[in-house]
Amino acid sequence: MARLVMKFGGTSVADLDRIHNVARHVKREVDAGHEVAVVVSAMAGKTNELVDWVRSMPLATGAASPIYDAREYDAIVASGEQVTSGLLAIALQSIGVDARSWQGWQIPIRTDNGHGAARILDVDGSEIVRRMGLGQVAVITGFQGIAPDNRIATLGRGGSDTSAVAVAAGLAADRCDIYTDVDGVYTTDPRVEPKARRLARISFEEMLEMASLGAKVLQVRSVELAMVHRVRTFVRSSFEDPDAPGMGDFDNPPGTLICDEDEIVEQQVVTGIAYAKDEAQISLRRLADRPGVSAGIFGPLAEANINVDMIVQNVSEDGSRTDMTFTVPASDVEKAVGVLENVRNGIGFDAIQSETGLVKVSVIGIGMRSHTGVAATAFKALAEKGINIRAITTSEIKISILIDGPYAELAVRTLHSVYGLDKQ
Amino acid sequence: MARLVMKFGGTSVADLDRIHNVARHVKREVDAGHEVAVVVSAMAGKTNELVDWVRSMPLATGAASPIYDAREYDAIVASGEQVTSGLLAIALQSIGVDARSWQGWQIPIRTDNGHGAARILDVDGSEIVRRMGLGQVAVITGFQGIAPDNRIATLGRGGSDTSAVAVAAGLAADRCDIYTDVDGVYTTDPRVEPKARRLARISFEEMLEMASLGAKVLQVRSVELAMVHRVRTFVRSSFEDPDAPGMGDFDNPPGTLICDEDEIVEQQVVTGIAYAKDEAQISLRRLADRPGVSAGIFGPLAEANINVDMIVQNVSEDGSRTDMTFTVPASDVEKAVGVLENVRNGIGFDAIQSETGLVKVSVIGIGMRSHTGVAATAFKALAEKGINIRAITTSEIKISILIDGPYAELAVRTLHSVYGLDKQ
Repeated sequence: MARLVMKFGGTSVADLDRIHNVARHVKREVDAGHEVAVVVSAMAGKTNELVDWVRSMPLATGAASPIYDAREYDAIVASGEQVTSGLLAIALQSIGVDARSWQGWQIPIRTDNGHGAARILDVDGSEIVRRMGLGQVAVITGFQGIAPDNRIATLGRGGSDTSAVAVAAGLAADRCDIYTDVDGVYTTDPRVEPKARRLARISFEEMLEMASLGAKVLQVRSVELAMVHRVRTFVRSSFEDPDAPGMGDFDNPPGTLICDEDEIVEQQVVTGIAYAKDEAQISLRRLADRPGVSAGIFGPLAEANINVDMIVQNVSEDGSRTDMTFTVPASDVEKAVGVLENVRNGIGFDAIQSETGLVKVSVIGIGMRSHTGVAATAFKALAEKGINIRAITTSEIKISILIDGPYAELAVRTLHSVYGLDKQ
Repeated sequence: MARLVMKFGGTSVADLDRIHNVARHVKREVDAGHEVAVVVSAMAGKTNELVDWVRSMPLATGAASPIYDAREYDAIVASGEQVTSGLLAIALQSIGVDARSWQGWQIPIRTDNGHGAARILDVDGSEIVRRMGLGQVAVITGFQGIAPDNRIATLGRGGSDTSAVAVAAGLAADRCDIYTDVDGVYTTDPRVEPKARRLARISFEEMLEMASLGAKVLQVRSVELAMVHRVRTFVRSSFEDPDAPGMGDFDNPPGTLICDEDEIVEQQVVTGIAYAKDEAQISLRRLADRPGVSAGIFGPLAEANINVDMIVQNVSEDGSRTDMTFTVPASDVEKAVGVLENVRNGIGFDAIQSETGLVKVSVIGIGMRSHTGVAATAFKALAEKGINIRAITTSEIKISILIDGPYAELAVRTLHSVYGLDKQ
């Protein structure tokens, strides 16, 4: 017998039939004797509808700006999960499973006051644990909690994954199963490389890099939280028949376990290849090469909430002028150029150049810590395909390479092959 | 300066434009210096959608019966008002009015544990009153509160009127304005009698009879509550231009004031004519005429939640057998006949006869208390039109007459005319 948190996203609860399918997944685990809490998202499309209303409301009144009160946004948007949790509780009761819905404020799931993008501070699992012990399934609204002002706070888009992991930590659950529309974490995006393989296990650290660098399976914050609290997290499909062979194999169901690296016996050097499109590069030409220049550039960009990623500074030719190149999300290019024009006089440079349509391809694996030559292998393989490298950043467990957009798929497939990820 | 509760129903908040229109009504009162709390329903159609989901969910799971947990029903259905209250708060803020939304559990509005049809026990108005004093408008979810089990409870359909009156009582408001899709209470249904006139004032007692006897302007429970707490309640239209002439006349806006009879200076003998369709009549033939028979009939019907209205018992012909006739809602006829068949042997009667398609027409007026001959006038007028009277019940301030359905409109118009209600 184990204590299990099961999380189902918006596409998994998109209509009454799918909610019933979710109920069957839950019943399977209950029937196996496990204590179960479920975390649900809003029905697919519902959150978007509510968000659209919130954004349109000021404009409907003829207000000059579409700005709205984030606390009201939260009260409105949180209603989506409230509906799903109630419907799933009814579905479970209808097939003979004792269940009740819980809203964030009832548990409570306490958050900070950051309405619209709040952080979970604490989950009081005591009453849920007591009822799980009596055989009752808790169906919990994802994506929300209650802030110190006694008002509902939402966690920002995709926050239901984070809710699930926080609930699993709060209940001291043995595992958090994230049911989604894919059946696990792959060595790379199968739409780009059909030879991509599902990973049986991946470490927290690797998954964090995968999520941060473009893999969309899990929200980055949920992986951070799982890593901090060591919550074993399982990614699996909600669309398979709940009673298909193997689905009820608690220790080894189809899917990917995200866990401590100690649990991964046969560690590969490279675990996966991620990529992120829509990167942009900004270059400052003939920049004054003196102390404080970097702060003068990146300080104002940070204040404008622009996320600067890869930074390359050329060696100064004559000791007084240099070129500085860095990447930002393509959607932030115009804003970034505007910020830089404003500080141009204070810093001193000849020109700003920007280029969009770039792609960052990343090689991830905790085995890199103890293996050398991983980066050299990538550079050589890409060079053989004639792919030009614009910038490189590395960490202990990943190498990221900036290239021109049209080469993205070729680069992913090349790297996937050169590190032996194609093989079973 | 006054303290005002304003309530807007589902058709008044059906889309973003109408919510903005509601915001303008609120702003008008705020600008006039009043303290304002607003109670809102769900957007028209939304509650029905949610209720349909709840009712369909057990069937989607293949359950034998469509029965569902009323506590889950409440959690789901209450989300409708949550959305509207947030959107109205944003609309108000966008036109420069300080406002925030309040859900029933936040105030709190305490109810009993009768989930799905709960009764309000108490409204803690202290924090709302404090904030109204600082100029903030409270936008409150109608139709719901929090039950002793710390879960959301709804009041049953149409409960937002009741919420508004309870909030007005809890805040010690000077008046509760019910904005709806009609512009007041009429002497009778204007669709039946175009000469119907809007009443400037009507007493609580009369309004309670009007609502109970078929007028659909206000929910019966809200009128009961207004009467008990002496909440002056104003029925007016939300569809008029908020800034049209007279709308801002606080003491005498267009609409109908429901108030204590002391406030009504020129009291008419008859105030209005109501009617209720879909009445059914059940007759028990040659019933044993002995003590305990009535209890034997009406006890089981009450246990089956069948609302018996008008009862007529013929004088016994031979001292041992009699006929008993009574009315029930047409929708309950089959159930009632079933109940009576079950008790037939214990009671003893020859036959059950039932007839549907009947109508109850009622004449209402507190002036009847001090005027005689009101009933005789009705009987004479109906007889002159050849309308057969099947049953009669009276109270201090009303006469109800059961007639055949096809004569309903003719009877309403005849009575409206004979009591002088056609005249200005």
